[in-house]
Amino acid sequence: MSFKLNIKLKIQNSESKIKTPMDLKQIAKDTTKTLVSYMTYQALRIVLAQLDETEPKRAYWLRQFSYRVSIQNGEAFLEALFQEEQRLAFRLLTVREHIAEEIADYLPEMLRTGIQQANLQQRTQQLERMTQTDPAIASDHPEQLEE
Amino acid sequence: MSFKLNIKLKIQNSESKIKTPMDLKQIAKDTTKTLVSYMTYQALRIVLAQLDETEPKRAYWLRQFSYRVSIQNGEAFLEALFQEEQRLAFRLLTVREHIAEEIADYLPEMLRTGIQQANLQQRTQQLERMTQTDPAIASDHPEQLEE
Repeated sequence: MSFKLNIKLKIQNSESKIKTPMDLKQIAKDTTKTLVSYMTYQALRIVLAQLDETEPKRAYWLRQFSYRVSIQNGEAFLEALFQEEQRLAFRLLTVREHIAEEIADYLPEMLRTGIQQANLQQRTQQLERMTQTDPAIASDHPEQLEE
Repeated sequence: MSFKLNIKLKIQNSESKIKTPMDLKQIAKDTTKTLVSYMTYQALRIVLAQLDETEPKRAYWLRQFSYRVSIQNGEAFLEALFQEEQRLAFRLLTVREHIAEEIADYLPEMLRTGIQQANLQQRTQQLERMTQTDPAIASDHPEQLEE
């Protein structure tokens, strides 16, 4: 069972008019939605772990529910849960707000560091590949497209 | 075509020993990974839109590539792209770093507001449902599990 954020990759074709190629406001908005959904998923994991310790019967029920209703869409998951077990749904709201509260302030630094580290790793790997291959192929201006 | 973050929902069973039910450090770490992957996806969208305007031939190629190699795993996507078109791969690294830089500082506030609004909406909906149904069913302590 996997958690998948259901985000459509809207690949514009060349005919479409793109007025703002880098709409940072929209990106920030979409990123927030993604984060809220991710917090809901983490809240579910936490509540399941807690219930395993305190109310195994309820843990079993919630686990079965999560097989039946996908956590992929956090809000839809919560709405369905409210219809069947509102106590657990309210608990998930509390837990996801708590997690968000706790980690929010660390996100800017962690995202910056995370991207920088990932980029450094990609660049290092590529430099290693370039030194191991034909310099003509590993040139800075590959012309494969123009062949 | 959809972008899905491939995150396994590790559902512990009741026999497993859970020592830290709310490991916020681990959650922050996992959230960062998710964000880095999401930035890579947004960078791809931006570069596609830019190329549509400036180099339609290259845009076409990158679009075909993104059908072939899933953006689901951002780092794997970049590694594959480095093997075929390193110029575009370097460009994606630059763009995702730029996006992260631009939105990072807004994330704490946006996440908090996002969660609060989503929670308020869920609570409001549930209150509306409760006032429309039998008060006995919509009690604060549903006993369905104990039936």
